[in-house]
Amino acid sequence: MKRPDIRRLPKRGDPQEAQCKLLQGLASKVVSTESVALAVAVGRVLASDVYSNLNIPAYDKTFIDGYAINPLDTCSATPSKPAAFTVIGKLFPADYPTDLQVTRGEAVYVATGAPIPTGAYAAVKVEETRLKCDRIEIVRPIKSGEGIIPLGDDVKQGALLLSHGRVLRPQDVGLLASVGLCKAEVYKKPVVAILSGGDELIKRSQKDPEKIPNNYALVVRGLAEELGATAVVKGIMPDVLELVERQINEALAEADFVITIGGSSVGMKDFVPDAVNRLGKPGVVVQGINLRPGAVSGFGMVNEKPVIMLPGHIGSCIAGFYFFVAPLIRQLSGLERGDLQPHLSAELAESVDSGPQFRFLFVALNRARDKFIAAPVEGGSSALSTIVKANGYAIIPPHKCLAKNANLNVFLFGKLETSQVT
Amino acid sequence: MKRPDIRRLPKRGDPQEAQCKLLQGLASKVVSTESVALAVAVGRVLASDVYSNLNIPAYDKTFIDGYAINPLDTCSATPSKPAAFTVIGKLFPADYPTDLQVTRGEAVYVATGAPIPTGAYAAVKVEETRLKCDRIEIVRPIKSGEGIIPLGDDVKQGALLLSHGRVLRPQDVGLLASVGLCKAEVYKKPVVAILSGGDELIKRSQKDPEKIPNNYALVVRGLAEELGATAVVKGIMPDVLELVERQINEALAEADFVITIGGSSVGMKDFVPDAVNRLGKPGVVVQGINLRPGAVSGFGMVNEKPVIMLPGHIGSCIAGFYFFVAPLIRQLSGLERGDLQPHLSAELAESVDSGPQFRFLFVALNRARDKFIAAPVEGGSSALSTIVKANGYAIIPPHKCLAKNANLNVFLFGKLETSQVT
Repeated sequence: MKRPDIRRLPKRGDPQEAQCKLLQGLASKVVSTESVALAVAVGRVLASDVYSNLNIPAYDKTFIDGYAINPLDTCSATPSKPAAFTVIGKLFPADYPTDLQVTRGEAVYVATGAPIPTGAYAAVKVEETRLKCDRIEIVRPIKSGEGIIPLGDDVKQGALLLSHGRVLRPQDVGLLASVGLCKAEVYKKPVVAILSGGDELIKRSQKDPEKIPNNYALVVRGLAEELGATAVVKGIMPDVLELVERQINEALAEADFVITIGGSSVGMKDFVPDAVNRLGKPGVVVQGINLRPGAVSGFGMVNEKPVIMLPGHIGSCIAGFYFFVAPLIRQLSGLERGDLQPHLSAELAESVDSGPQFRFLFVALNRARDKFIAAPVEGGSSALSTIVKANGYAIIPPHKCLAKNANLNVFLFGKLETSQVT
Repeated sequence: MKRPDIRRLPKRGDPQEAQCKLLQGLASKVVSTESVALAVAVGRVLASDVYSNLNIPAYDKTFIDGYAINPLDTCSATPSKPAAFTVIGKLFPADYPTDLQVTRGEAVYVATGAPIPTGAYAAVKVEETRLKCDRIEIVRPIKSGEGIIPLGDDVKQGALLLSHGRVLRPQDVGLLASVGLCKAEVYKKPVVAILSGGDELIKRSQKDPEKIPNNYALVVRGLAEELGATAVVKGIMPDVLELVERQINEALAEADFVITIGGSSVGMKDFVPDAVNRLGKPGVVVQGINLRPGAVSGFGMVNEKPVIMLPGHIGSCIAGFYFFVAPLIRQLSGLERGDLQPHLSAELAESVDSGPQFRFLFVALNRARDKFIAAPVEGGSSALSTIVKANGYAIIPPHKCLAKNANLNVFLFGKLETSQVT
């Protein structure tokens, strides 16, 4: 007899296989690119290899304040028999290009960054010279090239400056600017729309005019944006199948993929999987994975766009997020598969037994001298306060018992955790 | 005889003492706060302790799909002698508050998140029950509290939720939202104005209508913003004392502090220290520190606002930045003194001799199994390509020789380095 009060989840498969299925299904998707001003390129993913079209520096220049000379004049210089030079001019960084020429016995004052005049092959610091009337004296042999940064020393014309797939840091952007670029070709940020399920959220929103209690969506949005997505909170789905279907459909039209929070389990009002199946083929691909917490996570595909179904408990929701959403954002951002979450080795503070499922272990990291200690954070999987105590997570295979002090690979939730941990 | 071509730097003092002098001079400065919407609070520094004004959950609720019952009815339940219950209703998360009451022998269907009706003290999973006509059967004794998240389990009314000084992560913002807050009181971001010195920059800008080659300012701006400042590139100071003075003065009026890049050494056109001294008391406080690279770094104070004088070579500029600007931004952001750059322990890839000065060692981090390897990055201190190869730095005291494989404390340039290293 069919029970009206129960719908069984399909067999819960291996979470890592489910993840591969999601990513491989989208592997052929070409990520579009856009050209952005360097001033706003920090944090974006470079979409093409960039080569230098010029030498840096573009000419021999000095990195000291001193005198440019021909070092041959100093071969036998000593404090008692100094080499003397007539100072014939001054050069400053702005003086490139210069016609100034040095012949034997002549010197030119060069300020840091100034071009080296023709005929000079070294620069000697002012402090190392003696001033005698209008002449300067040098008291030791100077090597050819001393005090000089030669043309192309920093970057050679034609050299590869940066490879595609790099997350641009301030210094990378500076390097692009130094070869005269004003813009960078970067991958477009994936756009994700977030829908939360449940009449209870609507009821609470009505009590609270500012509609704040839809707070899990706020967490998911923040985590997705930290990973490089543009995340939009699309509001609340009421517990009506047709409305759930319509809202997912509208969200799919505006985004590269959709996240639903809640409504994907086997409760009487869990309409998300049905809605996804109604929207298009193949519909639900994975419903439920062998992960604790996070078992009710899954995903579907509608017109080649994923719908990631996250559980309504925040701990499970975060677990599903890092199994499905985080790698998806990375892939849709143009990052290589190898670009994982920031992760660290840490020493486990107490023994952990994963039990029969993969374990998504929330941990708080603490620094101890030259290592990190990972303390499992206990608490209900529905407690946001648990997540707040944690900095990251570890994935432990089923039936695995880790001893206290075991080495644990901890993934940080995001870059902001570095401000908590260190 | 006074040499027109030389101005000696004052004795170069201990860089860490210089840093303390800067920070202590501003220790009494009160950092202003502002109230921001939670949606834009991620990454900001919380300015007050936040307590919860309510319990989460606000009522006993279930975390399963199942039946709420009185566990006393199940004391002697077995598969052959099950306890039977009449189902008298259904509750969903949106049904709080509810008048529904359970008496002995009765059960209420509860969906995940639903309130527990009066008279029920446990909830048992649907999958664990048997359906017999209109009744359900339970085949084992159920403990009181099973399947229930009690009122206040996540957060108790009056509990401290988050302490001031915390850099808000997505989950923190979610927690604030969960107690009904719409805004957070955060410290204002410090505003820093960046000026670059040198006629050569003006000349290059004139050649390039988009004024890009002022690229070191772009790097400094990016690093300052990653640390939490609002950084404004104020353009280029020509090599004229009065203009340098005027531009620094204008920048000070708009910002909490000013960074100058270049023009602070002892060259003939290094007008920044003179300009700072002309602008107000005490003027230049530190000019030159015992650090390589970075020796020409220093700072002055004008009307209680700092002017950080960074060298014009990019390597030296970055060294000065992390010695003076980074801790200053942290302090002016309301962070505690202990909140340092993200840092990691790493194994040194080759021996390093610091020499007679403090050494600012640029390193590239690589992961090797469960540790990091720090390879010193060599290259001229004027080469941006050197900085691009590095992920962070270590500070090595003078006259110290570190052996290969020695343990090194590496500070990351910023959070974005995590995407390069891991």
